[in-house]
Amino acid sequence: MSQNAANAKPSLPVFTTPIHSLVTLERTNGTPLYQQICQGLREAILSGELAEGTRLPTERAFARELGVNRTTVMNAYNELASEGLIEGHVGRGTVVRRSYSVDSEEPFASDVPSWLFGLAEGEDALLGPDARVLSEIASMGERKEIISLAAGTPALDMLPTTLLNMVFADGLFDARQSALGYCPVEGLQSLRREIAVRMRQRGVAIDLQHVLILSGSTQGIGLISRFLLRPGDEVVVEVPSYLGAINTFRALGARAIGVPMDNEGMRVDLLESILARRQPRFIYTSPTFHNPTGVVMSYERRKRLLALARRYQIPILEDDAYGEIFFDGKETQPLKAMDKHEQVLYLSTYSKVLAPGLRVAWLVAPSTMIERLSLHKQVFDLNTNALGQWAVSEILRRGLMDAHVQMLRQHYQQKRDCMLQAIATYWPTDVRVNHPNGGFHLWCRLPKDMRARTLLREAASEHVAFVIGEPFHVDGGGHQHIRLSFASPEEAHIVEGIRRIGDAMHRIQARRSVRDEETHSEHLPMV
Amino acid sequence: MSQNAANAKPSLPVFTTPIHSLVTLERTNGTPLYQQICQGLREAILSGELAEGTRLPTERAFARELGVNRTTVMNAYNELASEGLIEGHVGRGTVVRRSYSVDSEEPFASDVPSWLFGLAEGEDALLGPDARVLSEIASMGERKEIISLAAGTPALDMLPTTLLNMVFADGLFDARQSALGYCPVEGLQSLRREIAVRMRQRGVAIDLQHVLILSGSTQGIGLISRFLLRPGDEVVVEVPSYLGAINTFRALGARAIGVPMDNEGMRVDLLESILARRQPRFIYTSPTFHNPTGVVMSYERRKRLLALARRYQIPILEDDAYGEIFFDGKETQPLKAMDKHEQVLYLSTYSKVLAPGLRVAWLVAPSTMIERLSLHKQVFDLNTNALGQWAVSEILRRGLMDAHVQMLRQHYQQKRDCMLQAIATYWPTDVRVNHPNGGFHLWCRLPKDMRARTLLREAASEHVAFVIGEPFHVDGGGHQHIRLSFASPEEAHIVEGIRRIGDAMHRIQARRSVRDEETHSEHLPMV
Repeated sequence: MSQNAANAKPSLPVFTTPIHSLVTLERTNGTPLYQQICQGLREAILSGELAEGTRLPTERAFARELGVNRTTVMNAYNELASEGLIEGHVGRGTVVRRSYSVDSEEPFASDVPSWLFGLAEGEDALLGPDARVLSEIASMGERKEIISLAAGTPALDMLPTTLLNMVFADGLFDARQSALGYCPVEGLQSLRREIAVRMRQRGVAIDLQHVLILSGSTQGIGLISRFLLRPGDEVVVEVPSYLGAINTFRALGARAIGVPMDNEGMRVDLLESILARRQPRFIYTSPTFHNPTGVVMSYERRKRLLALARRYQIPILEDDAYGEIFFDGKETQPLKAMDKHEQVLYLSTYSKVLAPGLRVAWLVAPSTMIERLSLHKQVFDLNTNALGQWAVSEILRRGLMDAHVQMLRQHYQQKRDCMLQAIATYWPTDVRVNHPNGGFHLWCRLPKDMRARTLLREAASEHVAFVIGEPFHVDGGGHQHIRLSFASPEEAHIVEGIRRIGDAMHRIQARRSVRDEETHSEHLPMV
Repeated sequence: MSQNAANAKPSLPVFTTPIHSLVTLERTNGTPLYQQICQGLREAILSGELAEGTRLPTERAFARELGVNRTTVMNAYNELASEGLIEGHVGRGTVVRRSYSVDSEEPFASDVPSWLFGLAEGEDALLGPDARVLSEIASMGERKEIISLAAGTPALDMLPTTLLNMVFADGLFDARQSALGYCPVEGLQSLRREIAVRMRQRGVAIDLQHVLILSGSTQGIGLISRFLLRPGDEVVVEVPSYLGAINTFRALGARAIGVPMDNEGMRVDLLESILARRQPRFIYTSPTFHNPTGVVMSYERRKRLLALARRYQIPILEDDAYGEIFFDGKETQPLKAMDKHEQVLYLSTYSKVLAPGLRVAWLVAPSTMIERLSLHKQVFDLNTNALGQWAVSEILRRGLMDAHVQMLRQHYQQKRDCMLQAIATYWPTDVRVNHPNGGFHLWCRLPKDMRARTLLREAASEHVAFVIGEPFHVDGGGHQHIRLSFASPEEAHIVEGIRRIGDAMHRIQARRSVRDEETHSEHLPMV
């Protein structure tokens, strides 16, 4: 898509609209003309169509353009001024005072890429049929009255404000050169060192020169894709797979080949025939608490995956966003820990265990590859923000991370249990739900013929949001799956959200059985 | 270069070395064998060749590999352990304890792109002949004993630690959703709004939908370049011009066409013939406190530049990193303020007025273009770090910026004067130096035949660094120019640095006059 957009090379657009075209006057509908003028302008101002600071025509000019009396325009302007939407401005005439009534700063759902909101006409088609649905969900998530089970974000109470305020208050002044200056494109040395230590504790024998700090996992997926993929190339993904990765691969013109999963992870037995017949550039996998399914790839599969990757000389990109958030004490080492031949590029992030707003993630790769990826990173992003890097490295250096992650595990495990309990209480029994041992999500298969899209629409009327299965599927499947995030909503909202979805399910089932009966009776022979 | 690197598609390299190959034993040179083993391993550990955590062979195995007694290896291991370089590890045997003795975290020079440090073999050639010189300078800047006049970074004392600690302590907890969560790819609305307000105060009539938050100006230059340029395309730059921009254009395979400058800025009279004959995709300019020359483009030139851009329908990318840092009360509005036809894309950053480590910059462009650039940004960088964005928006919202910028102006003006004074005191009189009314840099033309590269080498022996003129020049010029940054060093270091450069100049001149005499006498007829 970036390719296509670059090729289009549009000339710079102009964003002025003739203001009189915003007003439609109906002289016979009984509404005073000045109110009709108000209405047109008010809508344009509140929708942002008329930007803050836009100069409105003089009363005389506007009256002439609209074919009304000057008094009519004056009355309209006075009304809008009293509403605070426009104001007189010395030397500039009448200007729009503010454009948006929006003052919420709610984050978007993490897994619903925010670029979907910024699509130019026609470009959304490139993202496939799910673009609209996703943007609907995400804009739902922005509204306070909506219970969103869509976002893969940490809970508000789990954001490390106390830790951050502590390290800022104690150390920011002394560390200002590191924390507020420019830093190497590869990242702050102190952070790379701390990450290397922590990776070694998780069984991955690396040193700081194998660590590249990134401004989020997305940057890592993008960098590696730009580095390894050319348009038309193929990349192997699981079915289902993280939709952000799928979208990045597609945006770069690559083709994602899907390998099905089961409850032991990627069906590695099916992978070999793909590797034997095609030449994918790399294999993208989330072997631990896979998003969306929560599955952990079995030890045998991991071994076989590494052996295949070695035999066919294809790198693996391991995305391990959730590996540290395990429940019931069941820790799993990264796939990278079993990698003896530098086949695995490992990607993880502090967005889930600390805060997305820090934009600190990291890649583990051979040092020569780190050097080359840095070349690519710098063209777009001279370096990752030092402030966030320094804060994370301080939290690690002071040994504050373990207790924090331990707290997260308990918190999210409790929420997982809360959601599972609510599902058992409120949902039809023929829904199949996984029981993840870590991560942020439940993955649900809906009752027999129920489609996720139908349920989403029904649930939307109940003001509850989640993500449907289709965008996670590169094979066109997922129609009957939904992903529920238990991490960010409060427990009361989890229960209420699940109850509402359950109601929606029951209503759909009830309608269907009525329809079935009606259909059935229609076809009964008229006796 | 990113193109080339992507095409190369190397297979993943392996970074394990057989450990015994690190040791070369000379049985006849009188040094005990255990010390020779120590030496080989010590060098490998300190150089990073042997990574932290690497497992060493057992004493028995290593002795066999080297053909020595087991006691010899034991003595070597004991020695290295006593030096803290290796340690015994339960269950893992003997492991390398640390690889690097490096613990400095000095930032690199801002204008010396950090990717120069990470060049793979052969790739540096792509960056032209200056790559080595620049990396020399930058690594000089990392050493404490060096006085660096190379970096375009804020002074340490001007970093806003107090402001940041204040907004964090007061507001981080309540604002945690905005400051620590995911945010829209376009940026936090509160920051976009504050920036729009500030831009309007500087004469640019925009609203928040015309603002795209970036992770640094480099990202903006990269985004716009990827959007508007294809390999082989041309882009107009000033001669000299910001070397980071030149490098980005080249990295994307574009050709930079240079237009000379004088003390009124870009020679717009020479621009028209370029626009008439060629089809550059855009014009890159820094009209206010241009880097490196400090020049402000005159009002007449600005008008003519806009008229030309309109006539030839070519967008202008205005880079305004230093516009707010003006001296002597001489404020200049951005070029964008005169732009009535959406010809100007405007780029600025908080790296100079607040802190580079925040990675917060912004682009002003038509809202439709913002939408399309957001599409490109998200593939690489889901969003700019929210923490930095929130901190900046709080500083703006609380009205703390004006006093801060006012302080910067006084501070940097004083340092400019200090540097000019030192130059008047210590340098030969035939150096030409500009007198900038803002920004961070002096731009100097050296005495007649003196080359910047010669001076740099001479000055390096005096432990003082600056940037030579060549990398700022796309026309092969700049051999006799140097750029000096007065912003970041302390005044005492400015004076001392200028004195040392002056000494170097005098030495070069003295050597030359001796050589001239010798040359002259050699050619005298032997009487």
